[in-house]
Amino acid sequence: MSQLDSVLAQIDANLDRSIEKLFTFIRFKSISTDPDFKEECKKAADWIVGELNGIGIDAKAHETPGHPMVVAHDSDTSEKAGPSVLFYAHYDVQPIDPIELWERDPFDPQIIERNGVKVIFGRGSSDDKGQMLTFIEACRAYKEVHGSLPIAVSLLLEGEEESGSPSLLPFLNAHKDELSRDLALVCDTAMFDSETPSITTMLRGLVGEEVTIIAANRDLHSGSYGGPAANPIRILSHILADLHDETGRVQIPDFYEGVEELTPDVKAQWDALPFDDKEFLADVGLSIPAGETGYSVYEQLNARPTCEFNGITGGYTGAGFKTVIPSKASVKISCRLVGKQDPYKIRENLRAFVKARLPEDCEVVFAEHGAGPGHSLSADFPPLKKGAAALKDEWNKDTIMMGMGGSIPIVGEFKSILGMDSMLVGFALENDNIHSPNEKYDLQSYHKGIRSWARILDALAKD
Amino acid sequence: MSQLDSVLAQIDANLDRSIEKLFTFIRFKSISTDPDFKEECKKAADWIVGELNGIGIDAKAHETPGHPMVVAHDSDTSEKAGPSVLFYAHYDVQPIDPIELWERDPFDPQIIERNGVKVIFGRGSSDDKGQMLTFIEACRAYKEVHGSLPIAVSLLLEGEEESGSPSLLPFLNAHKDELSRDLALVCDTAMFDSETPSITTMLRGLVGEEVTIIAANRDLHSGSYGGPAANPIRILSHILADLHDETGRVQIPDFYEGVEELTPDVKAQWDALPFDDKEFLADVGLSIPAGETGYSVYEQLNARPTCEFNGITGGYTGAGFKTVIPSKASVKISCRLVGKQDPYKIRENLRAFVKARLPEDCEVVFAEHGAGPGHSLSADFPPLKKGAAALKDEWNKDTIMMGMGGSIPIVGEFKSILGMDSMLVGFALENDNIHSPNEKYDLQSYHKGIRSWARILDALAKD
Repeated sequence: MSQLDSVLAQIDANLDRSIEKLFTFIRFKSISTDPDFKEECKKAADWIVGELNGIGIDAKAHETPGHPMVVAHDSDTSEKAGPSVLFYAHYDVQPIDPIELWERDPFDPQIIERNGVKVIFGRGSSDDKGQMLTFIEACRAYKEVHGSLPIAVSLLLEGEEESGSPSLLPFLNAHKDELSRDLALVCDTAMFDSETPSITTMLRGLVGEEVTIIAANRDLHSGSYGGPAANPIRILSHILADLHDETGRVQIPDFYEGVEELTPDVKAQWDALPFDDKEFLADVGLSIPAGETGYSVYEQLNARPTCEFNGITGGYTGAGFKTVIPSKASVKISCRLVGKQDPYKIRENLRAFVKARLPEDCEVVFAEHGAGPGHSLSADFPPLKKGAAALKDEWNKDTIMMGMGGSIPIVGEFKSILGMDSMLVGFALENDNIHSPNEKYDLQSYHKGIRSWARILDALAKD
Repeated sequence: MSQLDSVLAQIDANLDRSIEKLFTFIRFKSISTDPDFKEECKKAADWIVGELNGIGIDAKAHETPGHPMVVAHDSDTSEKAGPSVLFYAHYDVQPIDPIELWERDPFDPQIIERNGVKVIFGRGSSDDKGQMLTFIEACRAYKEVHGSLPIAVSLLLEGEEESGSPSLLPFLNAHKDELSRDLALVCDTAMFDSETPSITTMLRGLVGEEVTIIAANRDLHSGSYGGPAANPIRILSHILADLHDETGRVQIPDFYEGVEELTPDVKAQWDALPFDDKEFLADVGLSIPAGETGYSVYEQLNARPTCEFNGITGGYTGAGFKTVIPSKASVKISCRLVGKQDPYKIRENLRAFVKARLPEDCEVVFAEHGAGPGHSLSADFPPLKKGAAALKDEWNKDTIMMGMGGSIPIVGEFKSILGMDSMLVGFALENDNIHSPNEKYDLQSYHKGIRSWARILDALAKD
């Protein structure tokens, strides 16, 4: 029996214990956004510290202005093969309202059947306590069977992910040396479907900007000023209309600098995905893809940048009518970024684009709302190849390189502060109801998730 | 001494009494919009009924669901020369908040000096109690000197003008025969300046429309849907941007149907007005006329139609940022109309314009907010010529044919329901602070206003 096989056997033999561990973990009501649950967050952090120490991984809960940050390092410091890794997950969970929509107590976990599938029911079962334990239980099996892990492992387990991670940046900056490793393993993502192993290799970045156009120095009556007085809604509409051409391409200068087309391999993989454009749009009442022409919906969503208008306001917006020419109108704009697009340069170019269209007697005020680059792992990045192969071994199916339309800020921060690339492997499913009532995690996600990590650790140690 | 001269002498001799009448009238707190002052409105109506009956004009206060409508007819029904007229003014006044900005009690009228000019201070002194009494005091003088008026006079005195005139339309419809005369005389407008007699011959009409674009069936996360999902703010911006060309011309089909250029005479008169484009715009912090190129600011304001955006809203408009793709975005649009533009046709064409630009998988909802045509009197309309000559005699200066950018709904309703044209003669000044604290009416406006009406009644009676 190979080293890996005995670890997998140990995992299978102790699955009930792993489930019991997850149940215990879920019972801590670690809702980070609600101050009433501060003590519960602390208890969850302390519990996980105890578990890690119990298997020979030295763990400590660090105080922060918010909730504790758990940092752990394998106590076995002997020379290891392969890359050193920092595993990231979070122990805090989303609030549970509206509580009346839960079928049972969110903090009293159970295994139930849902559509013929065994699932672990409870808040945090998927996001992110279950996902966190897939990795820790894999480590436990290694330690129990061999007394050591195949590669050098550290962990960073956060307690504020669901409340904006206010302590994370200062913590990363203060612990650069302790946390910087060859590679980050992040377990907070989903699989394409319940049978297809998936690594998220593309995340879109984001740059947010608020633009306020100011015309007259006060609101004007349209009877007394309509005609000669500049109307900021009209000016803003012209600017916004100019931001896309008729093919949906964004017109900010140099916007597409750093955007790469998919490689033929990934393109072929994506084209073969059972992703139904029509169904995806029909679900929200639409039928015509509104992104750049020439790209599939899945590509528009995961591999193409956007420029979206998230909110607009100006003048009288209450009930009825008021014949006012407003002094101001403003819009919140956010661009989703991919590849190597530079959020700071795009912000600058967006501002220039607006200014170039502003009448001389009007003003513009800009306010920035965040900026982070996209993330993409090259398909020939060695750990990615090894991880994909390990997952294929477990799931008996080719691993998909997935895109994700949204952002995971930690990935950008690991790169910019700690100089690490992140490999995002997760076993959640779209129907896990994360952030909603009746959250669950498939028992298969949990079990095969643990086995998957055992395989990945093994694979990373090999040449 | 001519008949007119003796009337003018009577007016001068009794000016103090006329002032005392106005003071009494101002003391009624006839704020129509505030239910607390319902009784005060009734008292004001009853007082004016008493005054009219006192001079031999049979008056009656008609009950309405709101405040009383005073209708009066000269009791002298002998055959008269010239056109029969319906004089219109309103006895209700604007609220007085913010009260702390008033220099003295708004309902305790006084004559004070302001910049070396004697003014009557008090709420309603100008808008519209003072203006109403200019006509009634002229009638009083005629009745006292000659026992009769030179033409057939009726009056309609409203008590809801400052609160949207809810009872007016049903009242006009119910009293068509009683109110329909050859000509309406409306006294609720201003002079170009304190020395220049003015008749407002152009009023802009209005059509108001609210347009709501609906894309997805719910708000979407821009990470999960950004790209393929239609963004209603983007769609709306394109529509709004298309509504004007680069010269400021409105692009709704057939929009300019019924718009007439100024006659050379009026154009020459307007070009000679001491109206300073720069100063007008600088006062509100602007410097570049934003209306149709090729027209002066005064023309853009008074003789040209517009299409204005009065309010826009969609998506997240609170503090901070939310990366939402909204389901809806809406705009309130109003067009100021001139000449013979048809508000109903324009509404229809605007809706077609929007629909033509709507993606097939999106919806639009329209809501109408009022429609009224513009008003313009031809320069060779006989009563207008006579009125202008009479005013010139009083003020020793050519009478200006003024435009007014706003709307006076009563003028359209007199035309459409009673088939009457309106001649708008008023003596208010721009600095009268109507609708604001410290309202006043120049003593000269009042005195020469009374004399002006005496001259106009005389002139209308002559061939």
